[in-house]
Amino acid sequence: MELVAELLKITASGRYVAIIDEETAGLLGVHSSDRLRVAYRGTEVVAMANIAADFPLNHVGLYAEISGMLGIKGGELVEVQLAKMPESLGYVRAKIRGERLREQDMVTIVKDVVERHLSEAEIAAFLTALKVYGLSMGETEALSRAMFETGKTIDFGETPLLDKHSIGGLPGDKTSMLIVPIVAAAGFTIPKTSSRAVTSPAGTADRVETLCPVNLSIEEIRKVVSKTGGCLVWGGALDLAPADDLFIQVEYPLGIDPLLLPSIMSKKKAMGATHVTIDIPTGSGAKIKTMTEAYTLASDFVDLGKRLGMTIQCAITYGEQPLGYAIGPALEAREALTTLIGGGPQDLKEKAIILAGILLEMVGVKGGRQRAENILQSGRAERKLRDIISAQGGNPDVKPDDIPVGDQRIEITSAQAGRVLWMSTDSIVQIARAAGAPKEKGAGVLLKAKLGEAVKKDGLLFEIYAERTSKLESALELAQRLKPVVLSKKAEEQMLLDQIPEKVTDEKPFMIER
Amino acid sequence: MELVAELLKITASGRYVAIIDEETAGLLGVHSSDRLRVAYRGTEVVAMANIAADFPLNHVGLYAEISGMLGIKGGELVEVQLAKMPESLGYVRAKIRGERLREQDMVTIVKDVVERHLSEAEIAAFLTALKVYGLSMGETEALSRAMFETGKTIDFGETPLLDKHSIGGLPGDKTSMLIVPIVAAAGFTIPKTSSRAVTSPAGTADRVETLCPVNLSIEEIRKVVSKTGGCLVWGGALDLAPADDLFIQVEYPLGIDPLLLPSIMSKKKAMGATHVTIDIPTGSGAKIKTMTEAYTLASDFVDLGKRLGMTIQCAITYGEQPLGYAIGPALEAREALTTLIGGGPQDLKEKAIILAGILLEMVGVKGGRQRAENILQSGRAERKLRDIISAQGGNPDVKPDDIPVGDQRIEITSAQAGRVLWMSTDSIVQIARAAGAPKEKGAGVLLKAKLGEAVKKDGLLFEIYAERTSKLESALELAQRLKPVVLSKKAEEQMLLDQIPEKVTDEKPFMIER
Repeated sequence: MELVAELLKITASGRYVAIIDEETAGLLGVHSSDRLRVAYRGTEVVAMANIAADFPLNHVGLYAEISGMLGIKGGELVEVQLAKMPESLGYVRAKIRGERLREQDMVTIVKDVVERHLSEAEIAAFLTALKVYGLSMGETEALSRAMFETGKTIDFGETPLLDKHSIGGLPGDKTSMLIVPIVAAAGFTIPKTSSRAVTSPAGTADRVETLCPVNLSIEEIRKVVSKTGGCLVWGGALDLAPADDLFIQVEYPLGIDPLLLPSIMSKKKAMGATHVTIDIPTGSGAKIKTMTEAYTLASDFVDLGKRLGMTIQCAITYGEQPLGYAIGPALEAREALTTLIGGGPQDLKEKAIILAGILLEMVGVKGGRQRAENILQSGRAERKLRDIISAQGGNPDVKPDDIPVGDQRIEITSAQAGRVLWMSTDSIVQIARAAGAPKEKGAGVLLKAKLGEAVKKDGLLFEIYAERTSKLESALELAQRLKPVVLSKKAEEQMLLDQIPEKVTDEKPFMIER
Repeated sequence: MELVAELLKITASGRYVAIIDEETAGLLGVHSSDRLRVAYRGTEVVAMANIAADFPLNHVGLYAEISGMLGIKGGELVEVQLAKMPESLGYVRAKIRGERLREQDMVTIVKDVVERHLSEAEIAAFLTALKVYGLSMGETEALSRAMFETGKTIDFGETPLLDKHSIGGLPGDKTSMLIVPIVAAAGFTIPKTSSRAVTSPAGTADRVETLCPVNLSIEEIRKVVSKTGGCLVWGGALDLAPADDLFIQVEYPLGIDPLLLPSIMSKKKAMGATHVTIDIPTGSGAKIKTMTEAYTLASDFVDLGKRLGMTIQCAITYGEQPLGYAIGPALEAREALTTLIGGGPQDLKEKAIILAGILLEMVGVKGGRQRAENILQSGRAERKLRDIISAQGGNPDVKPDDIPVGDQRIEITSAQAGRVLWMSTDSIVQIARAAGAPKEKGAGVLLKAKLGEAVKKDGLLFEIYAERTSKLESALELAQRLKPVVLSKKAEEQMLLDQIPEKVTDEKPFMIER
């Protein structure tokens, strides 16, 4: 059917969408969610049909993605027909019915996700089915392969190529900023890409960005790595496993994360990693709550690594409270830099040395942990980080105090004396975000007491930093309601952790970072 | 944050959608799928955030739904903030985790579906979780109540109020066109609403529309029913259980139908029905394939009816082949009218008498089946249908041959002599749709032999009717490929029903009609 093209002059966020009115839809036999084939002078686009009650008859409304591809200016006659549903939708339906999918089926789905031939509703149904049924290891492998095969890959021409990844969910975890310089200073190649925060107060990319640019091109990354052996860059714009961004967009409101393994591993594979340490923070404050879950996940990572030709070791680490004292991009960057210089909290130092040690031993270094500790103590890791900062375009002479933090600050004190018995990391995340993190990089929470530490009456529990008064006030109000730090003189004196509904039940943040 | 309102001047199909650019989204802390609160002069709308790479900075793009509600013309400053996710999304997430939902949770979800506060991806995830986990009877009841409470209801002021419904999926099932006049002629009230075809060749509304208007308002329906005791109208525009249309839109591409029971029963409840017969066609050609499934579904209908205060009886009926000989709106209307006049196929007559008989006995008529048969044989049902046609605005004197059918016609003959051993209703559905049904009302298939009937060599198997040559050719080509009618002299001579991949595997139509 020939219809007059009407240009909508806005994008549909990368989707191919065409609008027709109800009557035209009826004549074409098209329903909402059906696909339309829109053709003009030998070029064809398959678009999702959007049926509108009030759109002009015999017109087709084209979002910018389509008009761009067809090269039309508006007013032309284009041929519009009902198109077949994509083959991948058949596999999505099979997964909803509980069927196992073959590798080529997964590739077809992932390709259609990347090329925008599946709607968000169809992707949501696929992800929900994966979440509910779980994935077989064969499916996980197939998805991982499909995800990196549909994206870019980087060849650094180095073997071994090391990498480190945390499955995320532990606030204050700035370990990567220590491990990358330690491992690079040991003479190995470790090109680390990181994510920005979605629902947490800071991602590694947000932290590093307070020191130097992180939004580098593949060519720039290659230069930094060949010069320094490492990098700390944002992976989001590199088009590695681009399906993952689209999956995350859909998963985020649903609070599900069925693609944790393929998402992480496809990106490691795309970077050409040969040896990877995966950190699995475990505890009430982390994404993984129990050791049993952690062991299962760890063995899946190792198994998947073998299937994809990578050597994987997992570290199950303590996740009952935030790592270090600082939460928020700039506060955390300060703490990481301080630790490299020679101060810093013990838990952060310990974790960085252990994970770097594991990585070094994986590639044949004897006494990896001792080696990592020596590199950190000797100041060689600090110098390496400064080399990386410089290579990425930052100031290599930066001191911790040079990193700007919010000038709005408030102290939260304790109404009683005691020891810290319990800490709600969820609440601390909410307070840091209310203060403005991660968007306002100087915002966040600085803990003044951690589990087991003694606090006097009116003693400091934590400080809130913000860049704006209004945000500081919101964060303060939240801190007073949520009371995230629980004290007791002895453990048995404070058995009540929470009282319902006395406390406000804010929606818990779902951690999609990975 | 104050942003300049930019009017997009198109609707988003009833959704509340606002576009902002990436940088503004970053400043607001807004991600794709997050909600925005858009406020102007004391009026607020919560919209889905659509983040575009190329949208002008400090502007917010408003689809017509929002600009209409806010009463703005474009260029005004509006206040835009990140809004909380809707409460219903928490229940959607709980369902994805496998939790049982309470009645008030379901009401919250359905309300947010109707008020467009949940995205299609979120609805898809909800429906997929319902499909995979199944619904408890409590949840089914809660959903049914939520669905009719969020829509309009009609009070006919009559008790008992009878109704009949087929769960659908059997091509050629025009039984309602006989049952409604039989029951109304017996002196009972039976206001029947029907659907149009989505994936089938004809819905009852499509069939009746060849005789009289079916798109009546609630007031018009009330008049028709008070005059004749019955009606045969399209239920789609009456706003009964409006959530269902939105659910169907999402279910249709996914090929799932988890809301069959609440969908049907909420609409019956909205019409005020007290006694309902539910027809469950069962067999390889129908939606329900086995007797076990049929019994389970039937007992769920009866149970749900009790919970909603309706008396339900189910009839499990033969569904191995199309009902009658005609498939397609006009061809079926001809066959129904012929049957009322006194001819017509035996299976259609039998089924109509049985179902009408069950309904009559449900309201205390002794020997309901005999009564139904008498009413049909005596011509009283025919006169009642003509009264209804007239009351709905059609020609009461219409004869079967007056109903126009496609003037393009082709006969499909048999290459061998034998008896019809097997018939693929799926294939017949595809052929009828390829011929133009349901949009082209004169298109369809007219069977010339059914299961067990003898056919000579070169004897007629079926005819295809179309309104356009091109459609006739497509349908013919499909008929030659699919060979939907299988003959044999004796059953044991033809054990092979299908050969794979010799035959083309067209995607099977999913039946969403209900």
